[in-house]
Amino acid sequence: MARPTINDVARAAGVSKGAVSFALHDRPGVAPATRERILKVAREMGWTPSARARALSVSKALAVGLVMARRPETLRADPFFPSFIAGLETVLSDRGYALLLQVVTDPDKARQSYRRLADEGRVDGVFVTDLLVDDERPALLAEIGLPAVIVGPGIENPYWPVVGADDAPGIVAAVEHLIALGHTRIAHVGGPSDVVHGVSRKQAWCSTLRAAGLPDSPFVETDFSAESGAAATRQLLDLVEPPTAVIYANDLMAMAGLSLAVSRGVDVPGQLSIVGFDDTEIAAHLQPALTSVRQDAIAWGAAAAIRLLELIDGTPPTPIELAPPALVVRASTGPVSTGAAHAAPAQRRRSTRERGRMEKQ
Amino acid sequence: MARPTINDVARAAGVSKGAVSFALHDRPGVAPATRERILKVAREMGWTPSARARALSVSKALAVGLVMARRPETLRADPFFPSFIAGLETVLSDRGYALLLQVVTDPDKARQSYRRLADEGRVDGVFVTDLLVDDERPALLAEIGLPAVIVGPGIENPYWPVVGADDAPGIVAAVEHLIALGHTRIAHVGGPSDVVHGVSRKQAWCSTLRAAGLPDSPFVETDFSAESGAAATRQLLDLVEPPTAVIYANDLMAMAGLSLAVSRGVDVPGQLSIVGFDDTEIAAHLQPALTSVRQDAIAWGAAAAIRLLELIDGTPPTPIELAPPALVVRASTGPVSTGAAHAAPAQRRRSTRERGRMEKQ
Repeated sequence: MARPTINDVARAAGVSKGAVSFALHDRPGVAPATRERILKVAREMGWTPSARARALSVSKALAVGLVMARRPETLRADPFFPSFIAGLETVLSDRGYALLLQVVTDPDKARQSYRRLADEGRVDGVFVTDLLVDDERPALLAEIGLPAVIVGPGIENPYWPVVGADDAPGIVAAVEHLIALGHTRIAHVGGPSDVVHGVSRKQAWCSTLRAAGLPDSPFVETDFSAESGAAATRQLLDLVEPPTAVIYANDLMAMAGLSLAVSRGVDVPGQLSIVGFDDTEIAAHLQPALTSVRQDAIAWGAAAAIRLLELIDGTPPTPIELAPPALVVRASTGPVSTGAAHAAPAQRRRSTRERGRMEKQ
Repeated sequence: MARPTINDVARAAGVSKGAVSFALHDRPGVAPATRERILKVAREMGWTPSARARALSVSKALAVGLVMARRPETLRADPFFPSFIAGLETVLSDRGYALLLQVVTDPDKARQSYRRLADEGRVDGVFVTDLLVDDERPALLAEIGLPAVIVGPGIENPYWPVVGADDAPGIVAAVEHLIALGHTRIAHVGGPSDVVHGVSRKQAWCSTLRAAGLPDSPFVETDFSAESGAAATRQLLDLVEPPTAVIYANDLMAMAGLSLAVSRGVDVPGQLSIVGFDDTEIAAHLQPALTSVRQDAIAWGAAAAIRLLELIDGTPPTPIELAPPALVVRASTGPVSTGAAHAAPAQRRRSTRERGRMEKQ
């Protein structure tokens, strides 16, 4: 009687070859219930390690993929990806792996893209970024049998390992910094609510305010663009009771918000404190210099690449400690003042420069 | 007597198979002198179209490569690449081509990378960006026989087609705009002098000033970073006779320069007009909004991809009209004033906002 192959087990269990391979090698990529079913079927069929050895002899593409489901226009606004890709490359190039980059316009095309990459044997694994709240890609990749690493906040995924610094501590630090400066109305200009890291940042902001016994503050959802950051700031400043501080989900929106505030004669930080996220190179060179949350996207990319290659090789994961995001305090945040953003027009006309100088004198 | 193959011709001419292929098919990729020598050898050996047909039956990788020789840290500061890559993808994904991205740290590694990509048959062609003044890559790629498109200012290359809008007209427009506003000391904060587009922008700036009969103005060379843009601005403002206008080689440096000027109490544009390059999304949202030179990097990427696929397929080039860069005039440039940047300290204290308002009244 011939030993069963992985194909036999897959057929009998009604799953893909990839799913069987992951279950038998005790690697991520299948849901727990499916894994148990596969193992049961394999045991019943008398599956043995020699079949396992055969399954391991898979030819390698020596390439990994990054499929980004974004409109091309929104890519340029994001300072994360160039750094993240640079970080990937520091590991991949040394190991002789190439990075295959695809930009698709919607999630449907992303699914097609994954299937094609797998069918054509172009890549040995992929990175999944911009994880959605109800993201179907991890399950699809498990079904296809294409190893994946999820890049995002450290929320566990049933299918694949997640590599990422939790961004919540950065937001918590920002809120606590502003509370310590006397702020009680601390708005948040956040990213889209269908993206996991948008939700996690919003939750961190909200729960930190509540933990401090403060009432809810205004929230504005955006698409991460400078345009939407400026519009959100306008909306917040037009409130009957405008916030005295705003935490933005990226530096780009914080810059647009800072400029809008200045153009309306709102002093930063005298009347409005501003916090960004990303700590882009320009942050330190703005006037006033921008307080921002720093994430090391290069280290993050390197860690994701290491983890994906381990997954592909079937070697145990190296413990990787990614530094949590850190709040870099600069001049755009300061003590809450009596002349807040909703001050009388006459007061508004006093410029950033003059107010800055007066306070120092 | 057997017909000679491309291999035979290559051996006899002492060149690569790729070079023979390009010469015989009258495609770019070999220097004119080499082309003539190859054609002569081929004629002497009795090379015929049937050999030619054989040479055309080359299996395809259905992937193209972009090898960037840059330190990872400098990638994130450049808004050009995300847009350019997004532009490439608009063409490549429709044609079923994948983009293989490599970031290497120096030109030596870039050369190794090209050889490996060719040896492993990973790509059918590559894009060459950041062309250096004495760049060895085009000749190397011709030697390897890997089709290439050079992305950069439209200066003809002996080996490969060049796709790119000439950036000189953008700089010329900026200088002429400033001259029309009454400026005579118009500094340029440029990119590295070993990069072709750094040199072409500098030449455009210099020759436009001379054509207007103006004396030479100060030039500062930078590495394109915000840090170096701020340092260059400091240097210019510290001159005994500081410029009344500065043209920066990118928006990032212009933003850093704008903030530095404001922090020193220099009014923009009252005392100092500022022009950027790239017209990044944030430019319109700065205070004052930044005058900048707009290049359509997405269209540029699409054009480069079209040209490379034509080169790979051996089809004649489609005429592509890339719009020349356009000057987008915003509030950061204005008429030269009597209270220029080297005004007395008392005058310096007047802020951007107040001066702006006063002038409008």
